Amino acid sequence: MRRFLLLAHRVPVSGEFTLNDLAGGAGRMDEIARAVSTAFTLSNYLRRDTTVTVLFAAEPPPAARRIDLEGARLRYLNPDERSTAALLKNALVRSRSLDRPLEASPGLAVAPADPAELLAEFARRPGARWLLESGPPLRDDAALGPEIAAIVSDPYDPTEAERAILEAAGVPPRSVGPRALRTSQVIDLVHAELDRREGAGPSPAA
Amino acid sequence: MRRFLLLAHRVPVSGEFTLNDLAGGAGRMDEIARAVSTAFTLSNYLRRDTTVTVLFAAEPPPAARRIDLEGARLRYLNPDERSTAALLKNALVRSRSLDRPLEASPGLAVAPADPAELLAEFARRPGARWLLESGPPLRDDAALGPEIAAIVSDPYDPTEAERAILEAAGVPPRSVGPRALRTSQVIDLVHAELDRREGAGPSPAA
Repeated sequence: MRRFLLLAHRVPVSGEFTLNDLAGGAGRMDEIARAVSTAFTLSNYLRRDTTVTVLFAAEPPPAARRIDLEGARLRYLNPDERSTAALLKNALVRSRSLDRPLEASPGLAVAPADPAELLAEFARRPGARWLLESGPPLRDDAALGPEIAAIVSDPYDPTEAERAILEAAGVPPRSVGPRALRTSQVIDLVHAELDRREGAGPSPAA
Repeated sequence: MRRFLLLAHRVPVSGEFTLNDLAGGAGRMDEIARAVSTAFTLSNYLRRDTTVTVLFAAEPPPAARRIDLEGARLRYLNPDERSTAALLKNALVRSRSLDRPLEASPGLAVAPADPAELLAEFARRPGARWLLESGPPLRDDAALGPEIAAIVSDPYDPTEAERAILEAAGVPPRSVGPRALRTSQVIDLVHAELDRREGAGPSPAA
């Protein structure tokens, strides 16, 4: 299984933003949507062996939300940013006054989240890696098997609190190249490295 | 220099499409916009050493258009699909009744195109490579220097005519992984391979 945790720092947790300005007023929801999209979509099929959790951090608690997308059951995911952002926005809006989890669409669940707890839990997963601009190359990571739990930040740096949790948990930092890449590009390169190790193999059914 | 030629097969050359449905009525303009965006943008700067030509094929001629984006001079490129699509749409609309080239915005020129001629010209560039699902791995390509002229198709397969031109020109086919990737993902992996070969080096100014 390939798991990604995306840290979204500035997306309005209420879902109150317009789909026409995802890169502005929506706190770079464009990049979150692009990252979710590229984590699951290939040319002709969805990656069913992938899950993505987006942590929508918000101050003050308890406004934070998590959205969990499960490739094996996911539906209604189109390849473009706008429709992906719409799926996520819909979940945030429906979760606004709820204190319990909700499956907003097949394979897409939203729930209130404790950011510190979620991060610490994810950091304990097998294959946990913290993707950073600096850090040893993922490609040289001989300890990594087919399971990865990759933590990737949105265009904003992880907060001090997030860093402290990941460092305390001893999550190995890794990089996917010499340049400071976009969140979505990091995800593409993580998948590419695992694809290469795996070889062609059978393509999951669409 | 890193050059990309994107083959756009179904985008309305007139620019007559809505930004609210890029993946539908706009003939997968979402993926073209995403590919252009990811070709130029990194986390904190634009790749100034990159050019992208989009060939908007259309039947019948002479409706075909090319848009040339030059990283060294490019302005007004934001990271999201919608605003990138808006830049390209604006150029197509302004070019509609013109039979000459036009710089629609800084570093972005639009012109009528002869698809066969453009393809043949690009195929003769140093470092010409045809990115395909099949083909020897780009990463093993010892003949490739820092110059690449990469030809990548949109979500639709190259036409028979396009294939014939590329085969006649002897453009080496290359792949960037065992899976059939999206256009934008292919571009990410081409850049990543060249970045890796180049090492960190100085980052171009933003």
